[in-house]
Amino acid sequence: MNWKIYLSGEIHSDWREQIQKGVKAAGLPVELYGPVTVHEVSDDCGVAIFGAEPDKYWHDHKGALLNSVRTSNLIKQADIVIVRFGEKYKQWNAAFDAGYAAALGTPYITLHPPEHDHALKEVDAAASAMARDPKQVIQAIAYVINGAMP
Amino acid sequence: MNWKIYLSGEIHSDWREQIQKGVKAAGLPVELYGPVTVHEVSDDCGVAIFGAEPDKYWHDHKGALLNSVRTSNLIKQADIVIVRFGEKYKQWNAAFDAGYAAALGTPYITLHPPEHDHALKEVDAAASAMARDPKQVIQAIAYVINGAMP
Amino acid sequence: MNWKIYLSGEIHSDWREQIQKGVKAAGLPVELYGPVTVHEVSDDCGVAIFGAEPDKYWHDHKGALLNSVRTSNLIKQADIVIVRFGEKYKQWNAAFDAGYAAALGTPYITLHPPEHDHALKEVDAAASAMARDPKQVIQAIAYVINGAMP
Amino acid sequence: MNWKIYLSGEIHSDWREQIQKGVKAAGLPVELYGPVTVHEVSDDCGVAIFGAEPDKYWHDHKGALLNSVRTSNLIKQADIVIVRFGEKYKQWNAAFDAGYAAALGTPYITLHPPEHDHALKEVDAAASAMARDPKQVIQAIAYVINGAMP
Amino acid sequence: MNWKIYLSGEIHSDWREQIQKGVKAAGLPVELYGPVTVHEVSDDCGVAIFGAEPDKYWHDHKGALLNSVRTSNLIKQADIVIVRFGEKYKQWNAAFDAGYAAALGTPYITLHPPEHDHALKEVDAAASAMARDPKQVIQAIAYVINGAMP
Amino acid sequence: MNWKIYLSGEIHSDWREQIQKGVKAAGLPVELYGPVTVHEVSDDCGVAIFGAEPDKYWHDHKGALLNSVRTSNLIKQADIVIVRFGEKYKQWNAAFDAGYAAALGTPYITLHPPEHDHALKEVDAAASAMARDPKQVIQAIAYVINGAMP
Amino acid sequence: MNWKIYLSGEIHSDWREQIQKGVKAAGLPVELYGPVTVHEVSDDCGVAIFGAEPDKYWHDHKGALLNSVRTSNLIKQADIVIVRFGEKYKQWNAAFDAGYAAALGTPYITLHPPEHDHALKEVDAAASAMARDPKQVIQAIAYVINGAMP
Amino acid sequence: MNWKIYLSGEIHSDWREQIQKGVKAAGLPVELYGPVTVHEVSDDCGVAIFGAEPDKYWHDHKGALLNSVRTSNLIKQADIVIVRFGEKYKQWNAAFDAGYAAALGTPYITLHPPEHDHALKEVDAAASAMARDPKQVIQAIAYVINGAMP
Repeated sequence: MNWKIYLSGEIHSDWREQIQKGVKAAGLPVELYGPVTVHEVSDDCGVAIFGAEPDKYWHDHKGALLNSVRTSNLIKQADIVIVRFGEKYKQWNAAFDAGYAAALGTPYITLHPPEHDHALKEVDAAASAMARDPKQVIQAIAYVINGAMP
Repeated sequence: MNWKIYLSGEIHSDWREQIQKGVKAAGLPVELYGPVTVHEVSDDCGVAIFGAEPDKYWHDHKGALLNSVRTSNLIKQADIVIVRFGEKYKQWNAAFDAGYAAALGTPYITLHPPEHDHALKEVDAAASAMARDPKQVIQAIAYVINGAMP
Repeated sequence: MNWKIYLSGEIHSDWREQIQKGVKAAGLPVELYGPVTVHEVSDDCGVAIFGAEPDKYWHDHKGALLNSVRTSNLIKQADIVIVRFGEKYKQWNAAFDAGYAAALGTPYITLHPPEHDHALKEVDAAASAMARDPKQVIQAIAYVINGAMP
Repeated sequence: MNWKIYLSGEIHSDWREQIQKGVKAAGLPVELYGPVTVHEVSDDCGVAIFGAEPDKYWHDHKGALLNSVRTSNLIKQADIVIVRFGEKYKQWNAAFDAGYAAALGTPYITLHPPEHDHALKEVDAAASAMARDPKQVIQAIAYVINGAMP
Repeated sequence: MNWKIYLSGEIHSDWREQIQKGVKAAGLPVELYGPVTVHEVSDDCGVAIFGAEPDKYWHDHKGALLNSVRTSNLIKQADIVIVRFGEKYKQWNAAFDAGYAAALGTPYITLHPPEHDHALKEVDAAASAMARDPKQVIQAIAYVINGAMP
Repeated sequence: MNWKIYLSGEIHSDWREQIQKGVKAAGLPVELYGPVTVHEVSDDCGVAIFGAEPDKYWHDHKGALLNSVRTSNLIKQADIVIVRFGEKYKQWNAAFDAGYAAALGTPYITLHPPEHDHALKEVDAAASAMARDPKQVIQAIAYVINGAMP
Repeated sequence: MNWKIYLSGEIHSDWREQIQKGVKAAGLPVELYGPVTVHEVSDDCGVAIFGAEPDKYWHDHKGALLNSVRTSNLIKQADIVIVRFGEKYKQWNAAFDAGYAAALGTPYITLHPPEHDHALKEVDAAASAMARDPKQVIQAIAYVINGAMP
Repeated sequence: MNWKIYLSGEIHSDWREQIQKGVKAAGLPVELYGPVTVHEVSDDCGVAIFGAEPDKYWHDHKGALLNSVRTSNLIKQADIVIVRFGEKYKQWNAAFDAGYAAALGTPYITLHPPEHDHALKEVDAAASAMARDPKQVIQAIAYVINGAMP
């Protein structure tokens, strides 16, 4: 059995690549999924495909709806969701994904620096673990699947 | 039939009171629910009841978990959720509630100023409407229940 | 126990009123629900409350989304759905409601003239009954609740 | 992972073939499904297998019920549903499928010409996107799966 | 809280009346539901309301479908289902109701004479109890609700 | 995609073998499942494995419960259920399986001789088709999967 | 709105009475439910109603199944479950109820002395809070419902 | 089709190995799953990965939460759960898993010595079978899958 893991949240650092390398190096039977991570592409996909919108709100709306076809499907199929909150930006979609996973009963692990602890307390309270760096996430995945200790 | 409406998000302005007055003035058959909105109480409830924690993370954790008993129950029972994002703070719990409602298939309406539009595009894309002020929310509720136009 | 009955579909004839009078005359313990049936109001509610849209598509979209807050809630709570297809118009929202009810496992009864039989065969096949006039619907409701024969 | 896509609706133009060619040309990992699209076969399957019916209503009914074994199964398993409304006919089964997908929480994309926009506003409001031609649908699938821009 | 109890199965003896009297005498907070129990009415309701059918199969079909609007709703809402198998007839609808309740996770109690024990072993195996006479059913209900011993 | 088909009911004639041969001859992508069909084995499995029971009721009970591990799993995974009622016996487990499938929303096809029509009207009313012989079932499966007409 | 609270577990101390008095004194809008707490009655209900069993295992089985009609219904309807583990006995049914609530997504609060902490770590990890005495449970309920601090 | 079987409970005897050998020897198409069974590893995984905790309660909590990512996923995917209660310890997590499986509608088989019969009566009442030794479990699996008698 392969474990399906969805990597939600921040798209401005290389945390997904770190996890990808880590699970590969550890030979873990996982399939990693995530949103489209190229920022402009994610923003403009709706209008690029279905036609321009003069109003920025609908421009964003068309893109976000199309992205949700991908993300809602992949989160529903995931066995574990990792939710990353970076140092910057509002990242409300990450918290949205965490709430989505929680309502589905899918376990998730948060990944964020200490300065977000208080603001993320509700999100962390529904999580199965809170990690500080991608290495801990890789170790957690290795343990969950193989019982391997770091 | 009474409509159950859950008011999620920001606790630093009087938007809940405005909605409460508005629906009362309009004589709408609604029951309004929401989280505990006294900030310190919401933060400290866990340790106040179950005992102090030296570590701030567990201090927050105990409170957030206890708060979730209230919020998860009330969101699950809601017919409509209103999710308010104010001008300040991260407000990740509001986005979490939106994701939770989305996964349950419960319609929600967001309420936020224009400067958050882009950051909230995923949250807005799964919403049934986006409002700029509490008056619009009251009008929307009046319309949904009674077909009343503003 | 009151039975909740949702009356979906055509808004250009008085079939809802006929059913309302009929169930009242028969003293049946029912609560009747339905969409907002004032055509212009239903079309324009979105922009009237949340602001005008220059593009007709988004004008319609905002209204339809707001109406769905009402209709999805009421269909989910219904014990029985009546789906009326009149002589004219596309009435795709009626068929949409029938599919929605079917997926929820909620029994529905269609109400339409013979000329629609072939085009509605899939919708009728998932229905619990097909009626030709509101009187039959009233009789069906009376039978389902009280075992009363016409 | 292969994505399962159900192509619902109109059976009188070659839109399914266009999509099939397009996703093949793009090398997308999809499995395309749909109803039986030979009109007479779809109409007469019930009586051909289970015996003739003198009454056209039951003739249609037997066929539609048998078709529903296929369509309900395939829609339930789909990750994405494409719902096509052509220029002609009532096409109530397409709207029924859209409502079915909506209630299941399965994202769908509509495909129709501008003259149907107003009549389809409820169906479009619950959709993740509205396309004008099969090429846009192919591009949307390519984007959802691979993040590929047109 | 009132307990909703659905009385499924045999309609040729007075077991429902016995249970009704028993729970009333015991002052139990229950609401009893069941199918339409007048045999001819239950058989002919479909054609009486929606029009005659020359073919007996469709005559029965229309009636059975209409009855299912009542029975499926009431079984879904029941807290407990009592399924009675009498001495005679096939009573497949009783076994159907038992399977329906089992799939919903609703507890049911069977009520039948010893000669049916072997033929009903699968139905009894999924039941919460097997009773021989209505008095035992009344006692079981009294115990479940009040902890009252016979 | 393989279709999973569960063959429920009568174990005293060779209808399962006929269907197996038929779908094989037609090259249909199906996996056929069913209960354990050796009568004595099905009756005695419980006591043979877990120890004898002096009371016939518990003897049957242990066997029926163990059989339900198989049947409930296979019915839950089935895309289509075929429910066969033979000429003899009560066959309540077949009707139980039909009710189970109905509550799960899984389409089923009944297979029975005309003399059972009236007694099976509720079971047939919730079915997607009623067949008289295994050949019709094979044809129905071929049509559902491939759109092949007989 | 009344909150439904199910009190699961130990039946040898007066913790239920303490909670009952506490919530009454605090005027909280709660309905308290629980299993039948008279030990002998709970053990013997099955045979007292449905007839004696010479084998102790089936004696227990009949009673436990009948009790499950009550407990499964009440836990399913509960908004909050309190699970009490006393100083003595195995109390596996309390842990069973906790697992049941967890799978339903119903929040629960455990109540147990420190010496059980390690053995209950999995049960506590899925809980919303862990209390040491009934007073804390009362305070937690008061907070969840009214936001009242101790 | 492979059957997924989750082996829950006691980690101090070799019952899992016995079952593994037995199903292998019998050539059964099963995939066996279970918790991490190295006691210290299971206790300490949380702190080893995410950092030490001075308070034993949170030490345990972090580990138990991480373990739940594995166990909740595997139990949700299981077709059958085997729940083993050994001679010693409280083993509340085993009862928790049984309740979890029961709420999911997943059949489970208990495995325990006679001295636990009374204390486990609620857990056994919701089980599909109760076994005394691993050999019986292997035989039950062989029967469920292949209809093979011991």
